[in-house]
Amino acid sequence: MTDTIVRRHPERADYEREAIDAILDEGLVGHLGFVAGEQPYVIPMLYARAGDTLYLHGAPASRLLGTLADGAQFCLTVTLLDGLVLARSAFRHSLNYRSVVVLGEGRAVTDRAEKLSALEALVEHVLPGRSADARAPSDAELKVTDVIALGLEYASAKVRSGPPIDNRPDLGLPVWAGELPLAMAVGDPIPDPKCSVPEPAQLRSYRRGLR
Amino acid sequence: MTDTIVRRHPERADYEREAIDAILDEGLVGHLGFVAGEQPYVIPMLYARAGDTLYLHGAPASRLLGTLADGAQFCLTVTLLDGLVLARSAFRHSLNYRSVVVLGEGRAVTDRAEKLSALEALVEHVLPGRSADARAPSDAELKVTDVIALGLEYASAKVRSGPPIDNRPDLGLPVWAGELPLAMAVGDPIPDPKCSVPEPAQLRSYRRGLR
Repeated sequence: MTDTIVRRHPERADYEREAIDAILDEGLVGHLGFVAGEQPYVIPMLYARAGDTLYLHGAPASRLLGTLADGAQFCLTVTLLDGLVLARSAFRHSLNYRSVVVLGEGRAVTDRAEKLSALEALVEHVLPGRSADARAPSDAELKVTDVIALGLEYASAKVRSGPPIDNRPDLGLPVWAGELPLAMAVGDPIPDPKCSVPEPAQLRSYRRGLR
Repeated sequence: MTDTIVRRHPERADYEREAIDAILDEGLVGHLGFVAGEQPYVIPMLYARAGDTLYLHGAPASRLLGTLADGAQFCLTVTLLDGLVLARSAFRHSLNYRSVVVLGEGRAVTDRAEKLSALEALVEHVLPGRSADARAPSDAELKVTDVIALGLEYASAKVRSGPPIDNRPDLGLPVWAGELPLAMAVGDPIPDPKCSVPEPAQLRSYRRGLR
């Protein structure tokens, strides 16, 4: 296997699985990279973690999932933006973030039970508890849904947090320096016009992560 | 050039430059895909648009920028998450989002004036007005910063918005259906502990996009 991408800032690398899992579970969408010909593609995709496995799903005709199921190399990257880092010098501006890079090969999920539990995990990743409410996939729906599993053996995390790090001579400049925190905000639910079912309580308390 | 990735849901494709520019300008970080050996990598990167050009920057020793400057193929994807789409069936769950995929080759920026204006665009992309306050890059800083330009000739946008689309037989199920909007929230500025300069007014009104 190739090495991971954490090279320029080794002090920011954190290979511990606990940190990796926390980032993957807080994130909603990952960016999946794959190669077709010599061209790399990067596609935003929903994913879900179940233990040591990530699951992706899609339509069988999609080029992407066909490529993954054939055992080609992929890269799934999940990034959480935590804030702007505003330094006194343009050069030292940065972003606070937590990201995970997963490298490896895809495995097509063909076992019916694993496929059903992967699809349940995907719904639960979006909204915990939702799979108990929503109608489960029919056989016809299962047939037109491909599920791909990815292992977490070659996953690494990278985190930047805290204030800017200016060069000492810049500290006296009359420029405000610090952080501007960013997070995901959740708005008020918008019911489907055709829906008369009361709004479930879980929507008003929805959060990604602890923030 | 290869075609773009918009295949499965052509009704969601929007190739108009205006829509592409709006998404690129609202986004903060893109996910850049490149290939090293047979392995695709996907890295979160700050970018900035200046007319028909995207600029990226990084350290000269990074594998990524070296690859791009050599004219290899890349893919930069920017995704804005707008909400959860909660359908009555698990199968019809989705996400509302706006994304742009840019395919092409990188060009190393060596002209000093273009390099300086690219770095200014990157700071302005993070926080409009900031480049007037922060100390501009020194010659030494310029030397250790690589800048790569990417054209927008092969850019495409993809958007999903609105309520879930359930199958007719599912409409009567006793399951709440609708959207849960998501957006980027901005917190209170956190001054650098070593900073005694008053907070600039622009921080309290900072927003990405119109939301």
